[in-house]
Amino acid sequence: MRKIFKAELQALGDDLTQMAELVNKAITGASHALLNGDLDTAQQVIVDDQQIDDLERSLDERCVLLLAQQQPVATDLRLVVTALRMSATLERMGDLARHIAQVARRAYPTTAVPAQCTPIFEGMAGAAQRVATRIHGLLDSHDLDMAQTIEEDDEILDNFHTDVFSTLLGGEWEGTPQQTIDVTLLSRYFERFGDHGVSVARRMTFVVTGDFHRAATNDAVS
Amino acid sequence: MRKIFKAELQALGDDLTQMAELVNKAITGASHALLNGDLDTAQQVIVDDQQIDDLERSLDERCVLLLAQQQPVATDLRLVVTALRMSATLERMGDLARHIAQVARRAYPTTAVPAQCTPIFEGMAGAAQRVATRIHGLLDSHDLDMAQTIEEDDEILDNFHTDVFSTLLGGEWEGTPQQTIDVTLLSRYFERFGDHGVSVARRMTFVVTGDFHRAATNDAVS
Repeated sequence: MRKIFKAELQALGDDLTQMAELVNKAITGASHALLNGDLDTAQQVIVDDQQIDDLERSLDERCVLLLAQQQPVATDLRLVVTALRMSATLERMGDLARHIAQVARRAYPTTAVPAQCTPIFEGMAGAAQRVATRIHGLLDSHDLDMAQTIEEDDEILDNFHTDVFSTLLGGEWEGTPQQTIDVTLLSRYFERFGDHGVSVARRMTFVVTGDFHRAATNDAVS
Repeated sequence: MRKIFKAELQALGDDLTQMAELVNKAITGASHALLNGDLDTAQQVIVDDQQIDDLERSLDERCVLLLAQQQPVATDLRLVVTALRMSATLERMGDLARHIAQVARRAYPTTAVPAQCTPIFEGMAGAAQRVATRIHGLLDSHDLDMAQTIEEDDEILDNFHTDVFSTLLGGEWEGTPQQTIDVTLLSRYFERFGDHGVSVARRMTFVVTGDFHRAATNDAVS
């Protein structure tokens, strides 16, 4: 039984890693589409989100079957419950990347982000992509140093989020109402992406260090 | 064992019902604070959100203990996993009510919603409160008719969300950039509140009707 359980747990970890890889691809594509007005890439991100949703469903089903067939207790049980939570968070990160791509698609053939805000969104896109890359790395390698850098990039995203509002309210903002709406929502999507990244990183840290109580109770910062 | 399990499941249901009651109180207070510029109520909603977070944690811990001690399988197992998911969704609905209250607090002593948008936000507030009231009723009474009305109110919220953008982009919008930002985010918060309401309603429907596979795989519409 124990051997089967370990193999099943490994398969769960592989699914989570694959989800993180797809989220990384999604936020990279969405950022590129947004900053370059690239319609094809935006469209691809929107279509590909279904893969992440499907993976979440199969992973969740795997978790339920694992609970039913292996009846894990203590640490093993908390590992499975934590995997369930991480898959929901990764799915949500995929949704946020899709939302960014949808804004890019709607704005085509112009870009949703006016020149005045381009440097901020280049910064946000960079930080969000680092978060996604490191979550993938963290799930793949269990290297906890990555968790710390994810928290740092989340703080960078929060600061850019504040910068966006300073720009919009600074008196020199010349955007149209549509641009104000787009920039407000895009900033919110990137900021939430970082929050969810921190949630995954903390859960993973607790999985690796064995502090499962905190993993079970630590929810997305909002 | 079976008797203990049933009692534990009842306690889970009670916790979820209590969470829904607090979410209902939160969205009612947040809506009132927003539309009336009521600082005290806004502050109370923000402080009280901690109760919802605490309840989520204790409910989740209860679920994990239940899984460990009772080792449920089949339908019983899916019930517990569904409860875990519903508590996460209700917690998020509490966060959204808190975000609305925070916008109301920041705008004080003025109101965040300019007169031009007041009718729309009165409509959104009404629909969101109906969603919360019916979720509470659904969890309390298992009356599935309520699930259908929740879907209808979610659609009403989606339509108001579209109306907000039409107003902002209609050429007669006279709001400041701060008002454009506030109205954009508030509309998003109400719209997401409806999405999460539908997610809880669908899960609850599947719990009552026994179609657990759909309950386990049905995530917040986004």
